[in-house]
Amino acid sequence: MKEATAKCLRNDFCSGSMAHMRYLIYAQKAREENFPSIARLFSALAVSRYIRASEQYRLVHELIGVHTACSEAHFTFFRTMDNLERARDDEKHEANEVLPAYIAVAESQGEGAASKSLKCSAAVCRHLVALLDDVIQKTKHADEEPKIEQLHVCQACGYIAAEITMGGCPLCGERAKFISVT
Amino acid sequence: MKEATAKCLRNDFCSGSMAHMRYLIYAQKAREENFPSIARLFSALAVSRYIRASEQYRLVHELIGVHTACSEAHFTFFRTMDNLERARDDEKHEANEVLPAYIAVAESQGEGAASKSLKCSAAVCRHLVALLDDVIQKTKHADEEPKIEQLHVCQACGYIAAEITMGGCPLCGERAKFISVT
Repeated sequence: MKEATAKCLRNDFCSGSMAHMRYLIYAQKAREENFPSIARLFSALAVSRYIRASEQYRLVHELIGVHTACSEAHFTFFRTMDNLERARDDEKHEANEVLPAYIAVAESQGEGAASKSLKCSAAVCRHLVALLDDVIQKTKHADEEPKIEQLHVCQACGYIAAEITMGGCPLCGERAKFISVT
Repeated sequence: MKEATAKCLRNDFCSGSMAHMRYLIYAQKAREENFPSIARLFSALAVSRYIRASEQYRLVHELIGVHTACSEAHFTFFRTMDNLERARDDEKHEANEVLPAYIAVAESQGEGAASKSLKCSAAVCRHLVALLDDVIQKTKHADEEPKIEQLHVCQACGYIAAEITMGGCPLCGERAKFISVT
């Protein structure tokens, strides 16, 4: 793999690892504030980030060694409702700004596997923006959290589904296993 | 909190988030290679990193906003035995190189809470080096993994214990709850 593409994947691994960590922290905060459904959503978002970061790690691991990775990091710790909006804005920024730039680099270098992976990740981000927006609107409208019993995260791409469908993942089409977050 | 100290904490949050993610990946690899005890150890290491990263996040969250965080990142994906040695070397590097530099910055700025937290993290790293060394030696000696039934991670500092003692955490002294990894 060419170095500029690998650098993009490493920086996105860095960004994804911090996002994963933030979602674990947000989930804990939501549990403390007695929002069990939103805590479940943050836990599922953490799993989604884990799946995508693992894939990026797998793609770059051939370039063994110690590298410097940089990424924007958001440091906020408000109430759970603020964390929901921060999460949506972060996923939107990743989908609209960060990943398109990385995809352009990978494509210009003819790195098909990296480009495919990053495009899939961008599609997952867009789906998560819609999911988070829906929960934000429902919570604001009803003045309480919507009930989320369990969520299922596609092990292939990180898509989050409310129900497992027989046809496989609605986003990537893989008939992969889903990780259930209860 | 002064900016140079906050930058150290943010960079260590970045490094810790990536280490946490690597441990999750190593744990999955160990399960695939049929090393359930070593997988348990990697899972406990991931929890330990989560606890320390959460503490750093809590310390810097007052400086709300988007910041760039940088860190060295190790990209390797060998056999589980290699991952054990890589983990030990990473914790040693963190204890001997990275954290002492951050502690020096925090102390020079009179940031007592940050310095205390980073010193505690360095002590945990040294303990993890010893723990990993022990498992590496036992595995090499017996030519199979040592049996680890469960591990307990101190929720206050990230210390990993084989057994919960009544006197609280052997490292930080807190009578905090332990998270059990089975």
